[in-house]
Amino acid sequence: MITFRRAQASDLPAIVAMLADDPLGATREDASLPLAQGYLDAFAAIDADPNQLLAVAVDGAEVIGTLQITFLAGLSRKGAWRGQIEAVRVAGHRRSGGIGRLMFEWAIDQCRSRGCSLVQLTTDKGRADAHRFYEGLGFTGSHIGYKKTL
Amino acid sequence: MITFRRAQASDLPAIVAMLADDPLGATREDASLPLAQGYLDAFAAIDADPNQLLAVAVDGAEVIGTLQITFLAGLSRKGAWRGQIEAVRVAGHRRSGGIGRLMFEWAIDQCRSRGCSLVQLTTDKGRADAHRFYEGLGFTGSHIGYKKTL
Repeated sequence: MITFRRAQASDLPAIVAMLADDPLGATREDASLPLAQGYLDAFAAIDADPNQLLAVAVDGAEVIGTLQITFLAGLSRKGAWRGQIEAVRVAGHRRSGGIGRLMFEWAIDQCRSRGCSLVQLTTDKGRADAHRFYEGLGFTGSHIGYKKTL
Repeated sequence: MITFRRAQASDLPAIVAMLADDPLGATREDASLPLAQGYLDAFAAIDADPNQLLAVAVDGAEVIGTLQITFLAGLSRKGAWRGQIEAVRVAGHRRSGGIGRLMFEWAIDQCRSRGCSLVQLTTDKGRADAHRFYEGLGFTGSHIGYKKTL
């Protein structure tokens, strides 16, 4: 039985391993233990912020997926709240089993229950499978996502 | 002399007027006074959140631009903080005068001073002028931005 909950500090090694197990993440992350301090500091900042929800999907005791939701207040659209979903991963041995869809349905419900009128995310132009997945969930790829490294 | 500062409640009518004075915003916003309660509630939520910075550009006493920065903690990229810029507008009679560039340089400095290693934003695929503007500032349009209305 797959369930979803807020991530705890003890989930961090499994979460970082999933972030690293990805063609783009492999060059950017470091899943070696003990985890780099940056991951611990980031977890503390996320966990302390009432507008952040780092979540895991678990099957029994095993962490099999993760995503992060940020609840964003903004003036646009008459002061609409938005839910922003980032850092979505499913464990390698559990991919293509519908878990991503379940995670997203859960995440969208979290956004709805927080009063968001819009859910948004960006994904790398190179992730063609992801594009089909998000379009299947009713998302529209109406925007270009720009990034600048400092 | 153009300066930049955190927005105050008294700036709200000017900010909402700029959000509405835009081909996309015109259908989504309502700048009539008194402002709809949604704008006041959103301003209170933004102003109370230490990871949100709603800013205005001012020339003397006149508000001539606005943008919103959200500082996002995340595990990705070894726990990097990101600055996300949204709701960027320059007053209609002051466009094409370089104010947008000054606003962005100021906003990127804010992100740097908060320790962000990345600045991100999305813009509608239809805003061709904006694409050139962001590329000129060193942004790379590497992502697709998906949205889903709830």
